[in-house]
Amino acid sequence: MTLTRRSLLAGTVAAGSAIGFAPSPLAAAPSSGDTVPFYGLHQAGIVTEQQRHTYFAAFDVIATQRNALIDMLRTWTDAAARLTAGQPILPLASSYDTKVALPDSGEVIGLTPARLTLTFGFGPELFVKDGNDRFGLADHRPDGLAPLPVFVGDKLIAGKTGGDLSVQACADDPQVAFHAIRQLARLATDAAQVRWVQAGFLSPPAAHGTPRNLMGFKDGTQTPSDLNRFVWAGSEAPRWLQGGTYVIARRIRIVLEHWDQMKIAFQEQTFGRQKLSGAPLGAKHEFDPLPLGATDKDGNTIIAENAHVRLANASTNDGAEILRRGYSYNDGVDFTTERWPPWRQGMEYDAGLLFVCYQRDPRTGFIRIFEKLSRFDMLNQFVTHTGGGLFACPGAPANGEYLGQRLLEA
Amino acid sequence: MTLTRRSLLAGTVAAGSAIGFAPSPLAAAPSSGDTVPFYGLHQAGIVTEQQRHTYFAAFDVIATQRNALIDMLRTWTDAAARLTAGQPILPLASSYDTKVALPDSGEVIGLTPARLTLTFGFGPELFVKDGNDRFGLADHRPDGLAPLPVFVGDKLIAGKTGGDLSVQACADDPQVAFHAIRQLARLATDAAQVRWVQAGFLSPPAAHGTPRNLMGFKDGTQTPSDLNRFVWAGSEAPRWLQGGTYVIARRIRIVLEHWDQMKIAFQEQTFGRQKLSGAPLGAKHEFDPLPLGATDKDGNTIIAENAHVRLANASTNDGAEILRRGYSYNDGVDFTTERWPPWRQGMEYDAGLLFVCYQRDPRTGFIRIFEKLSRFDMLNQFVTHTGGGLFACPGAPANGEYLGQRLLEA
Repeated sequence: MTLTRRSLLAGTVAAGSAIGFAPSPLAAAPSSGDTVPFYGLHQAGIVTEQQRHTYFAAFDVIATQRNALIDMLRTWTDAAARLTAGQPILPLASSYDTKVALPDSGEVIGLTPARLTLTFGFGPELFVKDGNDRFGLADHRPDGLAPLPVFVGDKLIAGKTGGDLSVQACADDPQVAFHAIRQLARLATDAAQVRWVQAGFLSPPAAHGTPRNLMGFKDGTQTPSDLNRFVWAGSEAPRWLQGGTYVIARRIRIVLEHWDQMKIAFQEQTFGRQKLSGAPLGAKHEFDPLPLGATDKDGNTIIAENAHVRLANASTNDGAEILRRGYSYNDGVDFTTERWPPWRQGMEYDAGLLFVCYQRDPRTGFIRIFEKLSRFDMLNQFVTHTGGGLFACPGAPANGEYLGQRLLEA
Repeated sequence: MTLTRRSLLAGTVAAGSAIGFAPSPLAAAPSSGDTVPFYGLHQAGIVTEQQRHTYFAAFDVIATQRNALIDMLRTWTDAAARLTAGQPILPLASSYDTKVALPDSGEVIGLTPARLTLTFGFGPELFVKDGNDRFGLADHRPDGLAPLPVFVGDKLIAGKTGGDLSVQACADDPQVAFHAIRQLARLATDAAQVRWVQAGFLSPPAAHGTPRNLMGFKDGTQTPSDLNRFVWAGSEAPRWLQGGTYVIARRIRIVLEHWDQMKIAFQEQTFGRQKLSGAPLGAKHEFDPLPLGATDKDGNTIIAENAHVRLANASTNDGAEILRRGYSYNDGVDFTTERWPPWRQGMEYDAGLLFVCYQRDPRTGFIRIFEKLSRFDMLNQFVTHTGGGLFACPGAPANGEYLGQRLLEA
């Protein structure tokens, strides 16, 4: 745990000297403003001020022995602590002597930690898979960690859905976020392998404020009123999960080509907010309460009955609130044929929203809200959920603990 | 051309007022440090200090009439001038009255221009396609704008290769780069459509210097000694191309999983440079000249005969130099089966390098260099070229001209 970039450099110089290379200049130490603490009560990356990039990864555990899983979690814990502090996973020098201790791949040398956070979660099938208590954890699975229901309109791709473990890397630099997952994937070699990944980005406005999604609307205006009530698991949860939370990720493709054909007034009715200001329809400012009861001269509600903000609002969901932490994603273009007028063949964007939310219990959080949204939301005609997963995120390890220790040693 | 974000806002407020919305606060004007001039002698985005993100797009022209192509290029020119100045393509208000004049999709409202540049090019098939002089341009096709030869090892995917037009958007914000291409694609509706796109990113070190690619090596150390000699087309080119250049893009997948298994010493021999410092093997500092003749005690060259830097160097290519402007790309993971030891099934990264280079003539630039590299470079075992294209980039339009006017009115 005392390995630093200085060790890395020393290692390389030593190795280089053996075949005649010159010493290299030392990299600057990262400034503390670029570092988010790894250890603590809650895991970082949940209520941390959102970074500009994410690389979300789900892993399948391929180890069959509990001890192999524990060994990997120990290794990941050490690596995560180092990576988030801007250090390489191991000094490069060790790679010359062993096939096991691979060196850090090195593409972040010279970069700051860029506020890297790594947030880990456990999927339902880590506890029970096909009825099999794989690691003796079945008794510790919380009731909230059941497979998600099938929602109306779901078009989930198996290869982009589920997983035994999740790691959400967030950083202000995409190279730093990807680097972290790449190192963890390498360190997991014999115990886990990547199941799916999704990169995302977020572009906060220059003058502070709520970022816009690819539909051009401000996204993330509403945040939970009380983190202890809505985000952090409490005494209702098994001890290993207390201070933790549940993450739900959904890869949501948006049909940007069609959305862009809609008049602004229609877009605003769909969301229930003004596009430019983000104010609720019928209100003046972004953070004004939703005037859900306000009507026009014909007696129709100004915020439509199936507007997104109405259906997602706590007041129409028995008070349910979730903490959103989504990113836009942009995976290029795919071929499409559209058989309704105007008929066309050509490319469509595989772009949209990597929706990520954290909540104290999925049954009273995302599931409660999305059961209704998936059936009635006006937005549904423009979005398709194509992947994602549900994972329980334990509290952060204390220094000296490993991730999930309270579960695996419960 | 006088439309500004202020017009955009005014338009929306007017529209909003009709159904009772409140006025919105005005966005701040972009600061000039975030803006790269669009008009000039050369197109921006070629020798502009490289931005952190790119979104490279190739288009097929579907119009069959020369005038339709000209109309689109006029529209693109106006839009590009506005976008790079941080303005919307059109005021939102106009969308309420017409199906043609679509509004800006709006996701960059509140963002700076982020040094957006848009660099346009014309592909070989814009001039002659299947023997057909589509737009009466065949006589103006420069000899350098022929289809690229098939290189050893090419695995080009048709859907990710070629195109009649190229637009490379570069910006310090990925949302700004994508937004620009999205608007151009919408404005092109009946004249051109997207053929392929590729997003990329670049992470320059905190303390200035050469960025590292996903292999962990500094990339872009060598730049042309003389832009007029190696980058800008001169009197040998048709008049419309003088002051322009040729761009070649190659989507290069890197087998990161295997690269990461290699010892550092082997990686360094492959490149011919030290990983940490970027210095040539046998030299001390990154920018030292390559000691191509230096040998060890056994008489073997310190920089191997098939090392990347030796084969790519001007001195082994009759003095050929190109201006590289590549980005890393990261398109998630795909399923793979590896049938050599250690046998495995699982995911592999679809990540690597969006190699982009500019040169005065491709025959004495990339083609000259890559004919040899593609056969002998030690790096080849880790990289696969899967797409890309060649395009001739005219000089920048003068204010009042449209892109390619000197070609289309030659």
